Order: sequence, then C-alpha cells, then structure tokens
Amino acid sequence: MRESLIENIQSKIKLSTEEIEIFNTFWKERKLVKNEYIFRNGEICKFDSFVISGSFKAFYIHPDTGKEEIIFFAIENWWATDLDSFSNQSPSMYAIQAIENSIVLQINYPSFEELLRQIPKLERYFRLILQGYNSSIQRRIILTNSHSAEERYRDFVQRYPKIIQKVPQYLIASYLGITPEFLSKIRGKKN
Amino acid sequence: MRESLIENIQSKIKLSTEEIEIFNTFWKERKLVKNEYIFRNGEICKFDSFVISGSFKAFYIHPDTGKEEIIFFAIENWWATDLDSFSNQSPSMYAIQAIENSIVLQINYPSFEELLRQIPKLERYFRLILQGYNSSIQRRIILTNSHSAEERYRDFVQRYPKIIQKVPQYLIASYLGITPEFLSKIRGKKN
Repeated sequence: MRESLIENIQSKIKLSTEEIEIFNTFWKERKLVKNEYIFRNGEICKFDSFVISGSFKAFYIHPDTGKEEIIFFAIENWWATDLDSFSNQSPSMYAIQAIENSIVLQINYPSFEELLRQIPKLERYFRLILQGYNSSIQRRIILTNSHSAEERYRDFVQRYPKIIQKVPQYLIASYLGITPEFLSKIRGKKN
Repeated sequence: MRESLIENIQSKIKLSTEEIEIFNTFWKERKLVKNEYIFRNGEICKFDSFVISGSFKAFYIHPDTGKEEIIFFAIENWWATDLDSFSNQSPSMYAIQAIENSIVLQINYPSFEELLRQIPKLERYFRLILQGYNSSIQRRIILTNSHSAEERYRDFVQRYPKIIQKVPQYLIASYLGITPEFLSKIRGKKN
C-alpha cells in the first residue's frame, strides 16, 4: 500500500532505506465506502490523505442555489487534503467525499510535523507538490475567465485523462462551471 | 535591503549567522520605475522576486474584451513571481508590472536551486509561503462563486488592509471582478 506513496516521493527526492522505514511507520491506511466523507464543511481536516485507490471530490455547497460546487478531484497518487484547514487545524470551508470505494494513507498534523523533523528533506517533496497544485489552480482561474467552456473541457481532457475516465460527467460539468447538458453537447461534437 | 527578506524568512525558520551570509550573496537588487515589467505575458519569468518596496500587479489580457484581469497584487514583503513559469523556465500565461516605482530582490532559477542545495532548510520556508498563497487562492475561488461583491470587498479589506491603501481602486475592482463604479457604490455605503 505504501509503495505508491514512496514511489511518488522518490520521483521528486531520494530516500534511503532507513528513511523509508521511518517514513512507513507514520502512515495509517483507511478504507472509505462510496459517499463517505474524509471531513465535512465546517469540520477540521485532521489528516493529510494520500489516495491509494478510488476517487474523491472536494466541494462546497453554494449558499444560494444549494448546489455542490467542485473545487478539485483527487484520484490515485494524489492528495485529498484541505491544507489550509490541516496546517492551521481550523474548520474547512469545504468537504472531501469519496466518489467510490476508496483507500487512503493518512497522517495527523502533529505526526506530520514530527515526520518532517525526522526527515527534513521531505520539505522539498511537499514544496514541489504544492507548486504543482498552485500552477494548476492558477491556470484554472485564468482559463475560467478567458476561455470558452469547450476550450476548458478540451484542456481538462488533455491534462487529466485519468480523471475523465473515473469521474462522473455531471461532476466534471460542475468543475467546469457548466450544465451536464452543455457538457454532453460539447462531447458530442467532432474533434 | 536584504534585512526585510531575512526577517520574513526568520519568522518561519531560523538561520545561523553563517547561513545568512551565504544567503545574502545570492540576491541582487533591482529598481523598477512605474509601469516597468518584471516579465510580460509569453515571456519566461526568469527570477524569483521579493518586493522590498513599492507594489506590483500580476495580470493577463482578456482575449475578448482586451481588458486587464488581475490575478494578484504583490506589495512589500511579498513575492512577485509566476512560480509555474519560474520553476519550469517556460513562458508565463500572465505579466507582472510595477504599479509605482519599486525595488525587488531577485534570484535566477539555477541560483535558486543552488541556494536550496546549500541551505536545505529554506525548503521549509518556501513550502510554508506556498501553503499560505494556496490558501488565499482557494479562498478566493470559493468566495468568488458563493459571495456577493460587497461581501468579497469587505473580506478583502479585512485581509489585505495594506493593499487597499496602496493599490488604485480600479485595480481592486478588477481583482474583485466588478466595475470601478460598482466598487465606489459599495465603498459609499455605511458599514
């Protein structure tokens, strides 16, 4: 189970056998059934969660329409964490819920800090992960404001082919800020 | 000049006198006059830039309306960098321009990596900075979709009082996605 996380880390930094052993003791596996929450809106995101299998949606409820608004998806080899809530141990503005039966590796905040104290080079790994997430969120803001729904869908398909395969269409539509009907129309067009 | 950057870093991690000496050799001061660019849309963001004095806007040009759309502001003690472009040395989707005469400290990408190699604990500082930026950008997405312009303006005033003082109102309006006239109306209301 821990191999995929170790592999993900080793793609950015190198860990010794001893460090891998220390690292492994910090993480606990958790199984979630479909629709189960890692945390709900207003709760503290107590764990940093790495997805081993399955998929999750991060979303909040729009106060006027009552609709779910998707912030991001997390599939295998990605993180399903509200880092703001996790690092400040403060209530989250959103929720993360399993789209299907899923497995994650989790670490709580005091253990996370202790892990970084014991293996400081992990700071680099987490910095690089954050940097990548940052780029994608910034890109999303620019595309949302400056590109058509169709262009944004094509960009999404190209960048996240695995998410397209795993996640229901109506959730992709929500992420793109369009109706499921409009997404069907876009998908029906010839490329 | 370098003191404010060192102070900013020391608020998150501790550096020894020797490390501070090494650190200082890596940064070059640059003065920019009002309207000068750090980099333009389509250029590579060659430097990580820390603002010593003055203010900057990060923006792109909307392809349909031709209008500037503000991504973020950078005032003193903040970073004026497109990290995606900087870390991949790839063309930026946006531009960063001085709003007034300003001074920054800069480091290029190979030097940045060398600095991190020589003082690895800086990884933690940059991770924490990114985490804070991440939180603010995520918060912005949620607020933009779920709160009125007035609520977003009040939130902005509370979180970024220094930006309100320094940055022209029409740029704040652009950041909030409203017209300058509408912003005036909001500001005219009693609290």
